[in-house]
Amino acid sequence: MSNNKSNGYSSNGSLVVETHHHFLDELYKMMVKDVYDGGRNRDSKVVEFKHPKELEALMDLGLNKETSDDNLLKICQDIIKYSVKTGNPHFFNQLWSGLDDYSLGGAWLTEVLNTSVYTYEVSPVFTLMEKTLIEKMLNLIGFKDGDAIFTPGGSMANMYALNVARYKRFPDVKKTGLYGLPKLCVLTSEKGHYSIKKGMAFLGLGLDNLVNVKADSKGKMDVQDLEDKILQLQSESKVPYFVNATAGTTVYGAYDPLDKIADICQKYGLWMHVDGAWGGSALLSKKYRGLMKGIDRVDSMTWNPHKMMGSPLQTAAFFTRHKNLLPPCHSANAAYLFQQDKFYDVSYDTGDKSIQCGRKNDSLKLWLMWKAKGDQGFERDIDNLFECSRYLANLVKERDGFELVIEVR
Amino acid sequence: MSNNKSNGYSSNGSLVVETHHHFLDELYKMMVKDVYDGGRNRDSKVVEFKHPKELEALMDLGLNKETSDDNLLKICQDIIKYSVKTGNPHFFNQLWSGLDDYSLGGAWLTEVLNTSVYTYEVSPVFTLMEKTLIEKMLNLIGFKDGDAIFTPGGSMANMYALNVARYKRFPDVKKTGLYGLPKLCVLTSEKGHYSIKKGMAFLGLGLDNLVNVKADSKGKMDVQDLEDKILQLQSESKVPYFVNATAGTTVYGAYDPLDKIADICQKYGLWMHVDGAWGGSALLSKKYRGLMKGIDRVDSMTWNPHKMMGSPLQTAAFFTRHKNLLPPCHSANAAYLFQQDKFYDVSYDTGDKSIQCGRKNDSLKLWLMWKAKGDQGFERDIDNLFECSRYLANLVKERDGFELVIEVR
Repeated sequence: MSNNKSNGYSSNGSLVVETHHHFLDELYKMMVKDVYDGGRNRDSKVVEFKHPKELEALMDLGLNKETSDDNLLKICQDIIKYSVKTGNPHFFNQLWSGLDDYSLGGAWLTEVLNTSVYTYEVSPVFTLMEKTLIEKMLNLIGFKDGDAIFTPGGSMANMYALNVARYKRFPDVKKTGLYGLPKLCVLTSEKGHYSIKKGMAFLGLGLDNLVNVKADSKGKMDVQDLEDKILQLQSESKVPYFVNATAGTTVYGAYDPLDKIADICQKYGLWMHVDGAWGGSALLSKKYRGLMKGIDRVDSMTWNPHKMMGSPLQTAAFFTRHKNLLPPCHSANAAYLFQQDKFYDVSYDTGDKSIQCGRKNDSLKLWLMWKAKGDQGFERDIDNLFECSRYLANLVKERDGFELVIEVR
Repeated sequence: MSNNKSNGYSSNGSLVVETHHHFLDELYKMMVKDVYDGGRNRDSKVVEFKHPKELEALMDLGLNKETSDDNLLKICQDIIKYSVKTGNPHFFNQLWSGLDDYSLGGAWLTEVLNTSVYTYEVSPVFTLMEKTLIEKMLNLIGFKDGDAIFTPGGSMANMYALNVARYKRFPDVKKTGLYGLPKLCVLTSEKGHYSIKKGMAFLGLGLDNLVNVKADSKGKMDVQDLEDKILQLQSESKVPYFVNATAGTTVYGAYDPLDKIADICQKYGLWMHVDGAWGGSALLSKKYRGLMKGIDRVDSMTWNPHKMMGSPLQTAAFFTRHKNLLPPCHSANAAYLFQQDKFYDVSYDTGDKSIQCGRKNDSLKLWLMWKAKGDQGFERDIDNLFECSRYLANLVKERDGFELVIEVR
């Protein structure tokens, strides 16, 4: 093996692929020992925390010069040492945790196959897996027909919702922009996720046109306040067009009353979106899917399997009941990529449903995990999570110096 | 090992982590044998192509029921069999290829650590690595100061550019939206990437306000036509605000004359963005960075290391010379995440520079690759790629029945 770390080209232009089995084999052993086994051991630390300047001094971060495989392995050891072990049973800070064996395997396989999901020809298997997952999840939501696409996170999925909803109501907006349209307003719970704010700014809708609806003491949207605010907007000649309900708010874990909100949206002809990024996975449990009552009546939903279902970041998707909306809303018909005269059915080329061009394959890890566990495995997990929250709530109630802010279900 | 594929919870709520070493070990061996070694063998097939319906019939895609580790391994074998081996030396269809050992290792380590890059506390190492890469790349671009953020692909980075540029010129747009503003127009080469179209629609700017500038026979932007069109827009009381130049067009690989375009942008006070998603990596070569002459004068740039530099999909970033623009433009100040009273310097919390909330760690794989190869390794690779294109051009010229469409440099 030469000292040259690059794949070289011989003088006739042919590629000489060098292999570094030793590096990968040792790294694999290290990952299994120190993250997969060690990092999930409940007696191990979640993180060896260092302040930024301290960590910069401890780690050899500088680039510039080539380095040896042995030094790289030493660095990988440090990376593991100073990183947060999100699979540790004591990791509670964020809305995801755990490390599922099968989705990890799927994520690794994704990386070594390293493809983009925009045309069937370059990702035949993953195109079909995304299709399978979408059909499965549309079915769980209760959309009889519909369409969906995987997105790099829930914030992006919520922005998809804002965009396809305005396109549905004002199809010319794609061509003419927001110019000449009345002020399009969005209503969301004061406890809803901040990505709706980011979306208002990014999509040119403006934060001034976002209206916060009151939440009750349990963090659920106040439906009377929603209706009052819609009427108020109309009286100001503004055009409410979109209501964002939340199924699992970030801080309280509250499920908005979807059925009642759907009544209001129906009455006033508004697009109803459900941000189920975190809590949408309750749909997998017979016991808890009642929290999402009314979901089959809404127009769209965001759902992040990388949260409650435990697949790796990023696994998120946008779903809509409207079958033929994503392609006309997002297409740019790039001739070099989406030729119409391919020798397979080009409806399998999903790229133009997305606002991206190259799109990471986020399906395989979820698909493999689902194949391994089945519906039943997920149901058991979700039920367990709700049980654990009750267990924790009881601990809090019984312990001096602690106060339970909100009762769990 | 129990038959239960899930991590279970015992009756006192403690997590019982089960391990599936056999599955992961066998999968690792398979990935190394059939993708890492076998898939890159130049005598192997790039793909065992099957039409969609045929592949659906061949593969066991249905979910629902739990399945055994052995069956999963069999399925993984099929996934590999029917997927495109993008690391194969004969894979030429798209703008990326190859499979670098170190970035693959980094990508695998990313998956097992499974974290989000929004606050320092949850991703200390990766926050510093992104910072290191950003400083390195800003320096290569020639922005003396500046800011940047990794994005899920180049299309998203181009949309960042459209958004921060309009915010710079009209800071109220975040609050009020596009209402009340004149028609903001964007100019791009007719050979530029289609993501600018997608961005015009998504950001509410409208396709009607996108103006295509002519390209010459080599695919480079016609600077005279650019100036003519700016003047024409002004005469129609429209407001050109943004010029998208391309450093490496998708089809011709043409580099627009950045220096001359910068002159025009300076003259008319327009934001100049360079879509260097594909070709920006020429900056790593002393021999070819002249193609990017003028890049240090522009306002922003998109650069995808997952293309010419060979890191895995997705590795992309948005760079701007304007230091304090990303945070005010994109922030939503979510109180639950970005507390200001943490016990470290919260300027290391980068999440609010992004339009996402959770954000995949895309830095480690590139950082590790850079650490392994050094600047020199990348320079050698880039130089090799240009040499290969000349080699291919010569083959085309000499072979009967082929015609060279455009001379290579």
